[in-house]
Amino acid sequence: MPEARVAPQPIRRADRARQVADVLRHQIHGGAYDDGLPGEAELAAEFAVSRNIIREALAALKAEGLIHRGPRTGTHVAQHKYDHDLDTLLGLQETFDGQEVRNEVRVATTVSAPPLVARRLTLEPGAQVVFVERLRYLGDVPLSLDQTYLPPDIGAAVLAHPLETNDVFPLLEQISGQRLGDASLALEAIPADPHSAAILQIPGGAALLMLERLTSLSDGTPVDLEYIRMRGDRVTMRGKLTRSIP
Amino acid sequence: MPEARVAPQPIRRADRARQVADVLRHQIHGGAYDDGLPGEAELAAEFAVSRNIIREALAALKAEGLIHRGPRTGTHVAQHKYDHDLDTLLGLQETFDGQEVRNEVRVATTVSAPPLVARRLTLEPGAQVVFVERLRYLGDVPLSLDQTYLPPDIGAAVLAHPLETNDVFPLLEQISGQRLGDASLALEAIPADPHSAAILQIPGGAALLMLERLTSLSDGTPVDLEYIRMRGDRVTMRGKLTRSIP
Repeated sequence: MPEARVAPQPIRRADRARQVADVLRHQIHGGAYDDGLPGEAELAAEFAVSRNIIREALAALKAEGLIHRGPRTGTHVAQHKYDHDLDTLLGLQETFDGQEVRNEVRVATTVSAPPLVARRLTLEPGAQVVFVERLRYLGDVPLSLDQTYLPPDIGAAVLAHPLETNDVFPLLEQISGQRLGDASLALEAIPADPHSAAILQIPGGAALLMLERLTSLSDGTPVDLEYIRMRGDRVTMRGKLTRSIP
Repeated sequence: MPEARVAPQPIRRADRARQVADVLRHQIHGGAYDDGLPGEAELAAEFAVSRNIIREALAALKAEGLIHRGPRTGTHVAQHKYDHDLDTLLGLQETFDGQEVRNEVRVATTVSAPPLVARRLTLEPGAQVVFVERLRYLGDVPLSLDQTYLPPDIGAAVLAHPLETNDVFPLLEQISGQRLGDASLALEAIPADPHSAAILQIPGGAALLMLERLTSLSDGTPVDLEYIRMRGDRVTMRGKLTRSIP
């Protein structure tokens, strides 16, 4: 076995704080602190670090909007994040079955498809497509701003249904008489532009999970191109990876 | 079929700009504009919108750090994003096979496991674990800041190898004599705390893709708990979803 190449190094304070914040973040998501976080001294003992490091970690979580801190009230979880499945193709209402998903339909119209949109939906350049923009709430909280492009025929049929309360996926299956097949997904973290931020009720520049998702029918026909902005402070995507032979 | 519930609505200018920006973003990622973007007038014609809308869309992409704009030089792609696979479990060097991945090992030491870390690695509370923090470069660009917790035995053996040039995954397989099995993944968008931002050479508060990944050996033993901060402006995660019966 080769010799040890990396001598143990002291961990800097800011690194320690990040380490603590990362563990606390997942304990908060897991519901460990629903009745409030322990005091600084208790956390310092648990993590075997100084109170200054705990304070720095809590400040980072506060900046993420994850916790409230008050001089009298202590430290509390400000909001819960919702888990969204990365492994299966489900609409928001299907994902949060039993919870109230509400869609504010901001735009529902026909537009001339930009070249990339036409190409992705295998339409002629400049073809008319149905464009829908929805602001999606779980209870009172805006979760995501979804822009959807649909081919003209199936799109027109989708618009005939109440989109305030329906996911688009089951409608596509109902209208086409086919199950959906696969979707290809691109996931990014981007800063919220001022207008999207105002709509999603977050500060400008706040971190968004940006999804581009192209969904096809089971026969392979692409039917649904979406650009979804999810509030970073509200949504965690969860999935499973399997090792492939590199 | 129910009556149409949603009357077509005019699309507001800021909504139009977002629509244009989303399409341009993916054209940029796809390499369509590697020689520079078309002028405002040309883009306005292509998208059938006003030049003001094009200007607003380009301003959003500039704020994301995706493009440069100069009065004489025109609009150019500022940087390319790297695709990371969401479907298979691969290390960074395995993903970017053939490109130079370099790791700056910032910390490599033994720490007392915080309770959540011990639980996830199925160790006794307070057990010693190996902790490694690496700043990972692709060429000259810092891509991610990775914090890794490993069980003590396998961790000590990992530390005996040069981590500057090796992915941890193949080392874990070599040391354990087993293939890796599955990993569970949580993906979030969070703002960069000031210290992480300085390390990753991005502005404080910039959007990060935050991954928590727990990887097990093929016999199911958890061996590797990671917290990975990826620069949002540098990495796109790509994968495939399959429709499940809701």
